[in-house]
Amino acid sequence: MRNNSLREIVRAFRKYDDYILSTHNNPDGDGIGAELALSFGLKKLGKKVVIANSDPYPENYEFLPSNGLVKDKDAIKASYNVAVSLECSGLDRIGKMKKVFLKSKKIINLDHHMSNEYFGDFNYIDSGAAAVGEQVYDILLGLGVKIDIDIATCIYTALVTDTGSFAYSNTSKRTHQIVVELMNAGVNPSEIYQNIYEVSSLGKMQLLGKALSSLRTDKKRGVAWITLKKDNFIKTGTAYGDSEGLINYARSIKGVNVAISFTEVEEGRVKISLRSKKDDFDVNKIALSFNGGGHRRASGAILEGSIEEVKEKVLNKIFDYIK
Amino acid sequence: MRNNSLREIVRAFRKYDDYILSTHNNPDGDGIGAELALSFGLKKLGKKVVIANSDPYPENYEFLPSNGLVKDKDAIKASYNVAVSLECSGLDRIGKMKKVFLKSKKIINLDHHMSNEYFGDFNYIDSGAAAVGEQVYDILLGLGVKIDIDIATCIYTALVTDTGSFAYSNTSKRTHQIVVELMNAGVNPSEIYQNIYEVSSLGKMQLLGKALSSLRTDKKRGVAWITLKKDNFIKTGTAYGDSEGLINYARSIKGVNVAISFTEVEEGRVKISLRSKKDDFDVNKIALSFNGGGHRRASGAILEGSIEEVKEKVLNKIFDYIK
Repeated sequence: MRNNSLREIVRAFRKYDDYILSTHNNPDGDGIGAELALSFGLKKLGKKVVIANSDPYPENYEFLPSNGLVKDKDAIKASYNVAVSLECSGLDRIGKMKKVFLKSKKIINLDHHMSNEYFGDFNYIDSGAAAVGEQVYDILLGLGVKIDIDIATCIYTALVTDTGSFAYSNTSKRTHQIVVELMNAGVNPSEIYQNIYEVSSLGKMQLLGKALSSLRTDKKRGVAWITLKKDNFIKTGTAYGDSEGLINYARSIKGVNVAISFTEVEEGRVKISLRSKKDDFDVNKIALSFNGGGHRRASGAILEGSIEEVKEKVLNKIFDYIK
Repeated sequence: MRNNSLREIVRAFRKYDDYILSTHNNPDGDGIGAELALSFGLKKLGKKVVIANSDPYPENYEFLPSNGLVKDKDAIKASYNVAVSLECSGLDRIGKMKKVFLKSKKIINLDHHMSNEYFGDFNYIDSGAAAVGEQVYDILLGLGVKIDIDIATCIYTALVTDTGSFAYSNTSKRTHQIVVELMNAGVNPSEIYQNIYEVSSLGKMQLLGKALSSLRTDKKRGVAWITLKKDNFIKTGTAYGDSEGLINYARSIKGVNVAISFTEVEEGRVKISLRSKKDDFDVNKIALSFNGGGHRRASGAILEGSIEEVKEKVLNKIFDYIK
């Protein structure tokens, strides 16, 4: 459970010459930006570097410079001296790449979450960092790497995504200071923002419109819910995955403590998602009672029945719980 | 048309002792944050200050410290030595307060939009500033005012709202540097963000739903627009100010370079807002041609006519510009 200092981590990166870098499955902007930035920095120092992840990058991160470093398929067969994990609490979070990590001589474990399991030969866990990209920035400075525009773009991506555009409480003075330095290196924040966030589709917007017109609230009980029928997806040309995050619109209403979405995944099968804004309202209990699961603040389940039947059953359960 | 230097503006604020401060009608986070911060600073220097605006503050800014400075009704009858305009291109933008401004001995005009009409006795127009709140910050530093938590909270509000949470191209290194200084003064960014953005209402969500069901695109030309009729506000129990930011949903669609919102503010009067995602599409030119203003990436105007007439006129102008 020993945490290494930044200085020790920098020394490790100086010492070894052959790396594979991976981030967690369903990679996000922080993991992606951080691994790319680290790879560019190590390359500059003449090291051999390969990036490989269990899952491909989401489409909206394709704008990032990657210079052919990312090798998803072949990497899993090869072996490397050092395997670097970015933002994984444990080795299982690294998915298919776990095999490669177990074959490597040394594991370096970089993360900014306190829940980390310290599975590396070197562990650099900094819960004060807004993103693992912030840790990588510190490592690169320690290594004396000049922050060029490619590195800066990747670090900025890590910071802006993991802080919700500098809105979450993990955003520190240091985060803003680093942004100033990244802008000095030539980063164009508004362009990056557009590339990541402004790539919605007309269909997704129309689906959101349908969700909002279905929005209902029980003010007294602080409950809000949206309903999406199969037909809404068909008419807007969208898929189930496009409804991700729509529940947050119900959640963001003042006075709402519990938000629910009812989504008809197919005739007679309804997916419910539950979000709680209060620690003392445990939506996991509701989900468990319908053979689903999750955690206190976010959970889900799949129920058989018509959307109206499911709605009645679930809302009654929630209203009972609140009483 | 002479622009005063920061130094000259600071000297003016030092000289005079009796102020009324106003921002434009339908005040936004920048105008509100800036006028509150300036008032606190001037008070600290022992000056007499009143804030009065043509329209009340939207509900989500009620969390800001205001210390009883804001007097909407009586202020209009009194007279003041110096009237300070914050973020108004011309005196008409100040609405009902125009009368008071014309009675005052001196007008100080602060704005960060190039389209400003230089109507003041003192004009401090800094188009490099991300927000008028950034200009006020510079003025307060010039006046030697200590930035306390109240001032810092108001300046942060101005910056975060006018930069779309540091995402728009007006965000500069200076903006991020100021945030560091505001955090040094004790500002809590995530709390402010929640106060401003996570206090939606059922009505606002329904208004967004109406906006999205009105969303239309011209894919070939990369144009998207939403339409809000007076009736949409009435049926959802919302006010014009509640439509702020809805244009971003049109803007966020992939392939859209220009987004427009058409909002019927009253029968026969339509407010248009324009957003550009490309520097070479200057929406300010479109706005200016309809006697409006703003800057390259964000501008607006008010047109007379039915919503259908205005829509045809404006869309044709934009389609012509794209050709």
